[in-house]
Amino acid sequence: MLRLIGFDGDDTLWHSEGYYRDASARFVEIIGRYVDVSDTHVQAGMLATERRNLKLFGYGAKGMTLSMVETAIAITEGRISAADIHHLVEAGKTVLQHPVELLPGVRDAVAKVAEHHEVVLITKGDLFHQEKKVAQSGLADLFHRIEIVSEKDIATYRRVLAEFSLEPAQFAMVGNSLRSDIEPVIRMGGWGVHMPYHVTWEHEMENGLGDADAPRMLTVEAPDGIPAAIAQLVERSAM
Amino acid sequence: MLRLIGFDGDDTLWHSEGYYRDASARFVEIIGRYVDVSDTHVQAGMLATERRNLKLFGYGAKGMTLSMVETAIAITEGRISAADIHHLVEAGKTVLQHPVELLPGVRDAVAKVAEHHEVVLITKGDLFHQEKKVAQSGLADLFHRIEIVSEKDIATYRRVLAEFSLEPAQFAMVGNSLRSDIEPVIRMGGWGVHMPYHVTWEHEMENGLGDADAPRMLTVEAPDGIPAAIAQLVERSAM
Repeated sequence: MLRLIGFDGDDTLWHSEGYYRDASARFVEIIGRYVDVSDTHVQAGMLATERRNLKLFGYGAKGMTLSMVETAIAITEGRISAADIHHLVEAGKTVLQHPVELLPGVRDAVAKVAEHHEVVLITKGDLFHQEKKVAQSGLADLFHRIEIVSEKDIATYRRVLAEFSLEPAQFAMVGNSLRSDIEPVIRMGGWGVHMPYHVTWEHEMENGLGDADAPRMLTVEAPDGIPAAIAQLVERSAM
Repeated sequence: MLRLIGFDGDDTLWHSEGYYRDASARFVEIIGRYVDVSDTHVQAGMLATERRNLKLFGYGAKGMTLSMVETAIAITEGRISAADIHHLVEAGKTVLQHPVELLPGVRDAVAKVAEHHEVVLITKGDLFHQEKKVAQSGLADLFHRIEIVSEKDIATYRRVLAEFSLEPAQFAMVGNSLRSDIEPVIRMGGWGVHMPYHVTWEHEMENGLGDADAPRMLTVEAPDGIPAAIAQLVERSAM
């Protein structure tokens, strides 16, 4: 029987990826003054450096900004001006300072789920930035606990479940990332509500989910579909 | 009566500040190729930018690196080369990758304190970097809980104490920073063991502690003095 429902933050409760996309577009625009590459090419180079740097920097806007600076210097073979590097840093700062805008209906959806279950916010990324977003979201009071984590893998979810003294089968995660929110939870024996976001970072799209996993997950289009999806998983989990 | 003992991480359990100092020295060396400023001047400018950026970036090596890049571009009025900016990023990466070296005797000290008290590691900074340092330190098994926080203020310590259902008078913090480890804990009614580190970031030296606070804190020179200091605070707290 479902007891605990986890909610992802970025692109599940509030908009995020669009700001990263804007910074990437600015990166491409600036680099485009120095090198004649197709956007796809630059984006691929950016993603490659970013993934390499993920191991060192972790997720978040600061790591992304440092990655942009490094990639720009490498791609332009050092020809980029200090002024343009400063523009890249400014683009990164914009991501850190963007206003927190909730997805429509998200407060009601979390509140309804919280009537019947314990709810926990499990969000990944930079501690300082995520704390600021949680505070600005005005949603903190709805959650029994807020977990800011560096990676969303089975080990992380196990640690959260241990803090609540629950089994995986008693836990469902709601989020936009199949890789981070849905797959690890289903792999360990939990449940998932996938709410795709209109833009998703390539990194978060990778997953090994298949037909056999379908009974343990549901897909909703918008926050107002979440409470009914959870109710449906409660029925399934009670069978 | 003392129940819970908190330990700071950077410069209390393992060396840290020296790596930041090395990166700062590298910054001064690189900037020195462009501008004729006394080291004091550059360091002051660096500290000013860093403090301004602390509000946006939070603590840690990634924020420091972004600060160095910004400051270098500003101080040189955009004359710094992309290659030298890359050297600054590399200096920042060195901080993120430095080996974790424990202070001598620290494992024994924590283990002895843990024989009589619950012990918690409360460390401030970048989530990803701190997790890596905790893992590499080999000390994680000694602690009942590990808290990586974005700021060490009274609100943070209250939250940690609430998780243990303890009062401030039952808590002592061991650390090298009067500002972050000792003052807030004493202000809320707890106890402190100050272990000065041979180099300390200016930011961490600011504090408003005075003679009236002396009865609630002890100073030790090295980790092997910690268990006796805790024992002494236990006596005081029982009076």
